[in-house]
Amino acid sequence: MSRRVGLWLIGAHGGVATSVVLGLAALQRGLTDQCGLVSELPIFEDLNLIDWKNIVVGGHDIRQTNSLAEAQKLAGGPAAAIPEKTVEQCADFLNEFDQRIRPGVLFHCGPTIERLSHDDRVRRVDSGRQAVEKIQSDLRAFAEEQECESVIVINLASTEPMPSELNIPHTWDEAAELLDHSECPYPASTIYAISALDLGFGYVNFTPSLGSCLPALDRLAHERKTVHIGRDGKTGETFLKSVLAPAFARRNLQIMSWVGHNIFGNMDGQVLDDPVNKKTKVDSKDQLLGQMLGYDPQTHISIEYIRSLGDWKTAWDHIHFKGFLGTPMIMQFTWQGCDSILAAPLVIDLCRFTEMALRRGQTGTLVFLASFFKSPMGTEENDFMEQFQMLTDWAAQE
Amino acid sequence: MSRRVGLWLIGAHGGVATSVVLGLAALQRGLTDQCGLVSELPIFEDLNLIDWKNIVVGGHDIRQTNSLAEAQKLAGGPAAAIPEKTVEQCADFLNEFDQRIRPGVLFHCGPTIERLSHDDRVRRVDSGRQAVEKIQSDLRAFAEEQECESVIVINLASTEPMPSELNIPHTWDEAAELLDHSECPYPASTIYAISALDLGFGYVNFTPSLGSCLPALDRLAHERKTVHIGRDGKTGETFLKSVLAPAFARRNLQIMSWVGHNIFGNMDGQVLDDPVNKKTKVDSKDQLLGQMLGYDPQTHISIEYIRSLGDWKTAWDHIHFKGFLGTPMIMQFTWQGCDSILAAPLVIDLCRFTEMALRRGQTGTLVFLASFFKSPMGTEENDFMEQFQMLTDWAAQE
Amino acid sequence: MSRRVGLWLIGAHGGVATSVVLGLAALQRGLTDQCGLVSELPIFEDLNLIDWKNIVVGGHDIRQTNSLAEAQKLAGGPAAAIPEKTVEQCADFLNEFDQRIRPGVLFHCGPTIERLSHDDRVRRVDSGRQAVEKIQSDLRAFAEEQECESVIVINLASTEPMPSELNIPHTWDEAAELLDHSECPYPASTIYAISALDLGFGYVNFTPSLGSCLPALDRLAHERKTVHIGRDGKTGETFLKSVLAPAFARRNLQIMSWVGHNIFGNMDGQVLDDPVNKKTKVDSKDQLLGQMLGYDPQTHISIEYIRSLGDWKTAWDHIHFKGFLGTPMIMQFTWQGCDSILAAPLVIDLCRFTEMALRRGQTGTLVFLASFFKSPMGTEENDFMEQFQMLTDWAAQE
Amino acid sequence: MSRRVGLWLIGAHGGVATSVVLGLAALQRGLTDQCGLVSELPIFEDLNLIDWKNIVVGGHDIRQTNSLAEAQKLAGGPAAAIPEKTVEQCADFLNEFDQRIRPGVLFHCGPTIERLSHDDRVRRVDSGRQAVEKIQSDLRAFAEEQECESVIVINLASTEPMPSELNIPHTWDEAAELLDHSECPYPASTIYAISALDLGFGYVNFTPSLGSCLPALDRLAHERKTVHIGRDGKTGETFLKSVLAPAFARRNLQIMSWVGHNIFGNMDGQVLDDPVNKKTKVDSKDQLLGQMLGYDPQTHISIEYIRSLGDWKTAWDHIHFKGFLGTPMIMQFTWQGCDSILAAPLVIDLCRFTEMALRRGQTGTLVFLASFFKSPMGTEENDFMEQFQMLTDWAAQE
Repeated sequence: MSRRVGLWLIGAHGGVATSVVLGLAALQRGLTDQCGLVSELPIFEDLNLIDWKNIVVGGHDIRQTNSLAEAQKLAGGPAAAIPEKTVEQCADFLNEFDQRIRPGVLFHCGPTIERLSHDDRVRRVDSGRQAVEKIQSDLRAFAEEQECESVIVINLASTEPMPSELNIPHTWDEAAELLDHSECPYPASTIYAISALDLGFGYVNFTPSLGSCLPALDRLAHERKTVHIGRDGKTGETFLKSVLAPAFARRNLQIMSWVGHNIFGNMDGQVLDDPVNKKTKVDSKDQLLGQMLGYDPQTHISIEYIRSLGDWKTAWDHIHFKGFLGTPMIMQFTWQGCDSILAAPLVIDLCRFTEMALRRGQTGTLVFLASFFKSPMGTEENDFMEQFQMLTDWAAQE
Repeated sequence: MSRRVGLWLIGAHGGVATSVVLGLAALQRGLTDQCGLVSELPIFEDLNLIDWKNIVVGGHDIRQTNSLAEAQKLAGGPAAAIPEKTVEQCADFLNEFDQRIRPGVLFHCGPTIERLSHDDRVRRVDSGRQAVEKIQSDLRAFAEEQECESVIVINLASTEPMPSELNIPHTWDEAAELLDHSECPYPASTIYAISALDLGFGYVNFTPSLGSCLPALDRLAHERKTVHIGRDGKTGETFLKSVLAPAFARRNLQIMSWVGHNIFGNMDGQVLDDPVNKKTKVDSKDQLLGQMLGYDPQTHISIEYIRSLGDWKTAWDHIHFKGFLGTPMIMQFTWQGCDSILAAPLVIDLCRFTEMALRRGQTGTLVFLASFFKSPMGTEENDFMEQFQMLTDWAAQE
Repeated sequence: MSRRVGLWLIGAHGGVATSVVLGLAALQRGLTDQCGLVSELPIFEDLNLIDWKNIVVGGHDIRQTNSLAEAQKLAGGPAAAIPEKTVEQCADFLNEFDQRIRPGVLFHCGPTIERLSHDDRVRRVDSGRQAVEKIQSDLRAFAEEQECESVIVINLASTEPMPSELNIPHTWDEAAELLDHSECPYPASTIYAISALDLGFGYVNFTPSLGSCLPALDRLAHERKTVHIGRDGKTGETFLKSVLAPAFARRNLQIMSWVGHNIFGNMDGQVLDDPVNKKTKVDSKDQLLGQMLGYDPQTHISIEYIRSLGDWKTAWDHIHFKGFLGTPMIMQFTWQGCDSILAAPLVIDLCRFTEMALRRGQTGTLVFLASFFKSPMGTEENDFMEQFQMLTDWAAQE
Repeated sequence: MSRRVGLWLIGAHGGVATSVVLGLAALQRGLTDQCGLVSELPIFEDLNLIDWKNIVVGGHDIRQTNSLAEAQKLAGGPAAAIPEKTVEQCADFLNEFDQRIRPGVLFHCGPTIERLSHDDRVRRVDSGRQAVEKIQSDLRAFAEEQECESVIVINLASTEPMPSELNIPHTWDEAAELLDHSECPYPASTIYAISALDLGFGYVNFTPSLGSCLPALDRLAHERKTVHIGRDGKTGETFLKSVLAPAFARRNLQIMSWVGHNIFGNMDGQVLDDPVNKKTKVDSKDQLLGQMLGYDPQTHISIEYIRSLGDWKTAWDHIHFKGFLGTPMIMQFTWQGCDSILAAPLVIDLCRFTEMALRRGQTGTLVFLASFFKSPMGTEENDFMEQFQMLTDWAAQE
């Protein structure tokens, strides 16, 4: 009998999660091709990655809605991103998925995220410990009911404010004690990460939130013989930055300034309209240029919520650079990408690659997945092509 | 005493050549930094490349003008590309260079290029053989007078029409006989290539013209223990294509169409306004996408002469691609680059790398220089990052 | 009982016509608001224009297809322009419309248009006279069956090659004789115009084809007490030109060059891929700048057929202008507009305004409709704001 | 003997003022054409506007610098805006101008502007009254020494924070008393306006600061039989908005959102980097869309200081609009304009038109100059074409 893998999505009603589930349905039913899926490139053909048919999805969310309604939002209105017909053809799959969505926990998410929640969809918890226990009970039930050989938990929830001045011990035993502390310092993303890793499940942080990005959690992953990686899926403007900046550098063209303006109108945008949440995101987008160039040009990044654009993230980048004899030149680009649709296949890819890493017996941080992230854990490498080489090198191992 | 290298420019009065000479002057005099020079990247520091101080420049041209006037054109008017002050500070250097410019030959260049020529600046020749002899006599005189240890001939002349149905023998001895033929099939760029290689000089074809791109000429290079490479310097839009297309491919995003519109107003643009000459160029720009993507999206490339833009080549590219679930998305970029100023440092780089290859005893096609060319000889690789890896691998040898 | 108006579309299966019919259905059924309809602006509220409910549509076409299929094309695929749901809700209306579509005539349309035709959908004719008779018999039958008080014939067919060296007499009687001539000089668009005007029906030429743009046809309109206007609906890039150029002129900013690149993939684009047909279009787009500016800057216009874009006409315009002290500056714009959807409401507007002009007893050229056209007949005015003033002045007349 | 007019610039060392003075020099010496000057359009030919030769310039500033150095900044570096040669040819004129620049006053300008000032260039004042007296003494001395028949004071100083909750009486007598008040509420721009108007001089506010935009100052202007107008010169992005938005409105295309991102690196940009000062500017740019469209689309405006761009204000505007059948479409534009060079000729125009208004005996607010301003005083009209009509109507009087 074939291996069965559980994919557990934190933020199960968000645009990305809805697109992931819709996408899996469409793939299982042969309604779409493999466009956008990195794991379907010919170079990974011999890897024996898990088949879509064997992926079963569940998740947590705090909002009161259903997957079909969310999918219809993506397929309708002036910012439609996907064909209505695909949604119709997969409506039953989406409804079934809703049966496997459990109420989430709110924990240091900031008021903007809390406002999105609905009482019926939130597990009340008194401590970090209790939060972990409730989450783990959901995860365990899912794994058992669905008879999963392994489970990958992927964080797709809205961006949290980044906790300031974190003083977390580096060993897991000491860090674990803080779960019982009245002032438990872990934000929700980290609580979920702990819950997953502690059960030996894989954890992937597709958001800029803190998640598993702490030495103590890496220890936990090693101790429980499981794996994790993050942060912040690299889908649009930052993807292009990580492609273009290394090319400018190799031509010795000096970037004087790089300005990036992003506008979009999905729920992610709404949450990022809160400056505290936005800061986490902008910091994640902004740091990589200096690392790739070897010097720090002036940069500016803005992210603005423009309702009418829906999921269509539109970016304008203005790159002012200096060439030979001091001559200033300009490259500008605009990117009109559908955010959820760019992210969804990468989430499926990450599930497949992570599951394979678990099968190969790897533990700790999956650095070879750096090409998927704006702020990859475990490496300073931000050059997309170099990062991709890490992926193909990994694939070529045995 | 230090090694002295001759850099011989075909098209010595063109915008690129003028920028090369002005740039060498500015570098020798410490008036500019090393921005735009690939060979000055830290990774090439230990290579012991030739110093600017030891490069002496000469060339051929068919136009009646002088280098100072050409440089002033680049520095003035609404399309000014370089500071007037730099031109003033290097005026003597430019005047001196003019002393080392010899009248060129016209040979199968097409009427548009012929119209640019001036009787006093053209060597009349009756056969290919005679053309080679006259060119070689200029090259030899230059090498002797300037006491050059080696000479690199670089073709920067206007784009010729590509000869159709070339049936050139693959051995040099047979191919050489055609020089005496009444219907000698070689265009001027090839005549210059033969002249250079036959003398054991290096030959670099920075244009899309035929040049040394014939098996017989590669044989000649091997026989004379010298080297050659080309074609068509990769400076702007195509450079970006060779950076972006591989990135789209690695993300499995399917390019549905890629449209590139180029407008500029320098003399190169004027020559390319002739459809016959333009075809050579467009073909060179158009073929690489399919090679990088593994399939052929619809492409369209236009190059239009717009006087007011002068040397400022402006390109708009519209990339229509398909993502997950068939969702169509768009990337557009505009590139506002000064063509000569982008090309000039690459010409200096090519001179330095080629000279080093000669010192290392290499012969034949210098495939490792592929990253500099739109249609690199000796390889199908068009991915800029892969090409650049070839350069760093070469540098790391020995 | 209420007035009933017939709207007869030449090119009834094209994207614009299909959108017109779908739009009328959606308006009659209250499925859409009045966005895009000029005639619905508050300033025209008191004009008592004809209601959608009282417009009945018919037309000619030469292609073998049906309106529902054409509408579904517009609503599906990666270049979808309208919601599938609207098409579903109006399917019966589209099917009914097909009952009122008659086979067209081919007459000097050029081979590209002929290739689109289907034998069953083409009326064979031996002379211009015969063509007029067959068309008139269709028009008369439509007017009678539908009990129309008046009929407006609007040309939406593909762009024809422009006949060269037209020597048509200026009086209608003499010009009419040419219909019997073996070398009848009138292209199809003119044949249709004659047919309509001669019956006292209004004629509007929404294409760059010749149509009624001849003194003799203006005479005919006056004689038959009817009206006409054209040419070439001003929907996207040219609309913006006619808005922006007058503004630059009023600021005394000197346009040095204006380059416009248009890409799109609908059938119109396919026909314009033939250079002969394209010339008619480019000429229509290109002439107005000089008229608005008072001098002729260098211009370049390209129109390219890019399949993947479907009906989404994308234009990039690069405007290079000179300011104070000779400083060169640049404005660029990109326009991503759905061609048929921009055109359709204007066609409905033109039907309504033309019908009102007939009711008011006007005859000849309807100059006050200039703002709708790239090459307005009867005036040299191309400034959109001035043209619009003509429309509001007309509306204000009793 | 010919009329002589004094042009007095507040912010005499700023980029705009420097360009105005350099421009007047170049015009007087025949070094440049009349490009960019509205007042030189053929329609104003018969107006008998004052000749450049008869304009003499002076001004106030608080910075320690000189005009030649400021002009050289505009002409050099990677963001050069004007030819070095023009600066050289007008150096003496600039130096002479410096002799007529007096130290300015600081008064409620906010800390960012104060930081730019130099002790030697600031008049210390204890009250609003004293500030007015000192300024008037400078203005009077200038008018007498230069034998000016009239003086026009134009505010070109950096944008001040807008005072909150202004409760200024509507009569001048009562408002004048506040000058002696310990908490005098007038910002510097208003102090200068009072000084000018009270002397019967014209006052033009080219900045978004408060200036003369108070009923009491309009009374003062009438009482002293002089004129005033403002606020905020309309040079680039807002100019385009006031051209494009009315055109969209006339086509009944519904703007869903209009986003404008502005980046530039001159001193104005530096001052606007302070959020308090920036707010004054953004408010001025943001309000006009609703007025022109008749409804309020979502808008976003950002202004960011990007050092490398110098005076080159680059704007990207993204206009998301809805067409027929609800189809969403997009127009984007980028504007690369040199801010000072766009503004300078308008300042000269305003001097000329204002002087003519004085000669015609007008008093109070010069509403007919609305086309020059982002927030025109005395009218709600923001449509550029309608505003321009007001100017030509005025010109046609008498």
